[in-house]
Amino acid sequence: MTTLAIADGRVLRPDLTVTAADVLIDQDSGEIREIGPDLASEADDTLDAANSLVTPGFVNGHCHVAMTLLRGYADDKPLETWLREDIWPAEGELTAADIRAGAELGLLELIKSGVTAFADMYFQVPEVAAAVETAGLRARLGHGIVTIGKDGETAREDAATGLEIAREYDGAADGRISTAFMPHSLTTVGSEYLAEFVPKAREAGVPIHYHANETADEVAPIVDEHGVRPLEYAADRGLLEPEDFVAHGVHVDETEIELLAEVGTGVIHCPASNMKLASGMAPVERLREAGVTVGLGTDGAASNNDLSMLDEARDAAMLGKLAADDASAVPAEAVVEMMTRGSADAVGFDSGRLEVGAPADLAVIDLEQPHLTPPHDLVSHLAYAAAAADVRHTVCDGRVLMRDREVLTLEAAAVRERALEAAEAVVERADA
Amino acid sequence: MTTLAIADGRVLRPDLTVTAADVLIDQDSGEIREIGPDLASEADDTLDAANSLVTPGFVNGHCHVAMTLLRGYADDKPLETWLREDIWPAEGELTAADIRAGAELGLLELIKSGVTAFADMYFQVPEVAAAVETAGLRARLGHGIVTIGKDGETAREDAATGLEIAREYDGAADGRISTAFMPHSLTTVGSEYLAEFVPKAREAGVPIHYHANETADEVAPIVDEHGVRPLEYAADRGLLEPEDFVAHGVHVDETEIELLAEVGTGVIHCPASNMKLASGMAPVERLREAGVTVGLGTDGAASNNDLSMLDEARDAAMLGKLAADDASAVPAEAVVEMMTRGSADAVGFDSGRLEVGAPADLAVIDLEQPHLTPPHDLVSHLAYAAAAADVRHTVCDGRVLMRDREVLTLEAAAVRERALEAAEAVVERADA
Ligand SMILES: [Zn+2]
Ligand SMILES: [Zn+2]
Repeated sequence: MTTLAIADGRVLRPDLTVTAADVLIDQDSGEIREIGPDLASEADDTLDAANSLVTPGFVNGHCHVAMTLLRGYADDKPLETWLREDIWPAEGELTAADIRAGAELGLLELIKSGVTAFADMYFQVPEVAAAVETAGLRARLGHGIVTIGKDGETAREDAATGLEIAREYDGAADGRISTAFMPHSLTTVGSEYLAEFVPKAREAGVPIHYHANETADEVAPIVDEHGVRPLEYAADRGLLEPEDFVAHGVHVDETEIELLAEVGTGVIHCPASNMKLASGMAPVERLREAGVTVGLGTDGAASNNDLSMLDEARDAAMLGKLAADDASAVPAEAVVEMMTRGSADAVGFDSGRLEVGAPADLAVIDLEQPHLTPPHDLVSHLAYAAAAADVRHTVCDGRVLMRDREVLTLEAAAVRERALEAAEAVVERADA
Repeated sequence: MTTLAIADGRVLRPDLTVTAADVLIDQDSGEIREIGPDLASEADDTLDAANSLVTPGFVNGHCHVAMTLLRGYADDKPLETWLREDIWPAEGELTAADIRAGAELGLLELIKSGVTAFADMYFQVPEVAAAVETAGLRARLGHGIVTIGKDGETAREDAATGLEIAREYDGAADGRISTAFMPHSLTTVGSEYLAEFVPKAREAGVPIHYHANETADEVAPIVDEHGVRPLEYAADRGLLEPEDFVAHGVHVDETEIELLAEVGTGVIHCPASNMKLASGMAPVERLREAGVTVGLGTDGAASNNDLSMLDEARDAAMLGKLAADDASAVPAEAVVEMMTRGSADAVGFDSGRLEVGAPADLAVIDLEQPHLTPPHDLVSHLAYAAAAADVRHTVCDGRVLMRDREVLTLEAAAVRERALEAAEAVVERADA
């Protein structure tokens, strides 16, 4: 057994208490073997965690990681306009190599901000999967299916690609990659394709992930056409099972909240994206109160504009209070839970918790920072004050992805260079 | 003349365009002497700004900097409860030495996040002033006056202290410190004290700064008692002059917005604090549209929980869109303007702009970061993606306060140590 010790840290436990302890990792199985005092001396390798908080690796529950190429390309527009005028035309110009470059840039950013697992919806998924294999994170990947505005054959092909990707990549990268069937949303995929492909996805044993109830404009057409709320429509079409998870859930009514709670489908809350696109305020306090599993996601970098889950946690706590009109709503503990166990449970990862037998997915946060002083409450600091740059080390599946701020699995300078070149070329082609 | 050059950077100009240029600073006058190509070779000292954005130093328009000692001490409570149950009792235990320790910790954080000037309301102001003198920032300081709940003599003494501090410290630290007369708010200071002391503050030639219209609970009593809106009441009492500035301005109606625009009183928007305390959403887009000078502030670290103006800018853009129900509201350009020139204009600093003759107050931001790649739009990056840790150098009044992340005017480790000890002792006394 090869072992790695995280030494002398303050370990955030599943009950959100903090204990001074070492964490001993079995690198062969990728699992946590022991948490307790004096475990470092017997280890093959050690990461120093003195004056640091050892937390579960953050889980980004909804992302489009290759969209880093379009970071800052178009801002300050509402969702529909932004997609139609800027994002979709630019995405139309993305080659497989571009997606690879954008995905690597995004993964570099995720590792540097302590993220160890994420769910991603995009196209050219084999490129994203190759980047994940190299970078060493855990991921649930899927091809984002869109059928509206396409002729029948092209639309069907897109749905078939979604199914094929879900089948082919499930279990890739020694099991670090899992997949989902990912219709883009309930309004961008025709119900005939859902009728045909959802049963096939179930047969393949993969969950289903889609954008749901993100804007008010997305709710009305479904209510008009089908006479039911979007998530009732989703349930009717077989898209609302315990293993499924939806992104956003901003405009959900009480019936839908109860439906989510009853079924066990998770919701990935994306507060930064919801604010930046003025989509609205998700009723996070109410969702949690009802027993819905709520995770956190950054959405793509073009609507955020970074991939830091620590920003997202702070946003979630703050927006959750505004939405509830109650400063005690969505407290620090809730968002720390959401960005770790909440996202992991919703997406279907076993990580998000530091305990014996759990996957060794963790991040080590430097507490020797002015903005993390004094240490009255480390859970509060994680929710409200810690920033991506405070992450010292990132470990996924027992492997060190970043040590002392240096990412070991990707060459940062080369990744940035390729992304710069790709982004420049994409803008040139899109503007031509 | 001793000169400092900021070399090879991309300089953010007052019209928010970015030019490749050097910045030459006259360190004797503390002013920018020239902006253009090839100015570094003749300089006595040089700060490297290759692959970096040179921005005006950020201006934190409303802060209680010593409250860093209470960071994370009490969270997730509404304003009134939080103040009465936690903050005021703890503040009652703060000694002069504690305030000094907390102020130094806050200033360390401000310098590390590119802030060069701030407005601060607190007590034991001589301690804050001494810390500012050492740290090298620019500041407008004042004693926060509270008269409710006090007997007449104590109340009058507090107001007199506020006046005395404003008189005594105006122009201190070679002019880097200016002052204001600072009644805590319109509901916590009796109108008899305003009637007596506001004319004396005018005579002393200092502006007036106070919390206004922060929560709905603060508006109702004034409307009930005086029959007018709070800012009309303020105007009647002589507290709304062009040089004055108010913090928050969340619950302002159209009459008050027009009054602010007409008079020229600035508003310091504190989005993080407003969200965290569920105070509400300031109508920032409407304020700017009406021509009101809007700046940005972090408020104290206990309601934020950090002092990063870059976080605040992102929060302002995002919350502004939600408040206006329009993703095009409060765009990146607006918040970059708000955290530089907007705050400076509101508070009455001449800084906030990089041009010849302006104070040499600036920050240099490292662009070689994954989360700032690709460089489609540097103003967007500053608003949405840059973080405190990306600040390489901070310069105020022509003096280098931080070089390559090392703060030169404060000893970081000792400042943290003193703050840790002070915070621990305060909590012990408060709990006793
Ligand atoms: Zn999305
Ligand atoms: Zn305040």
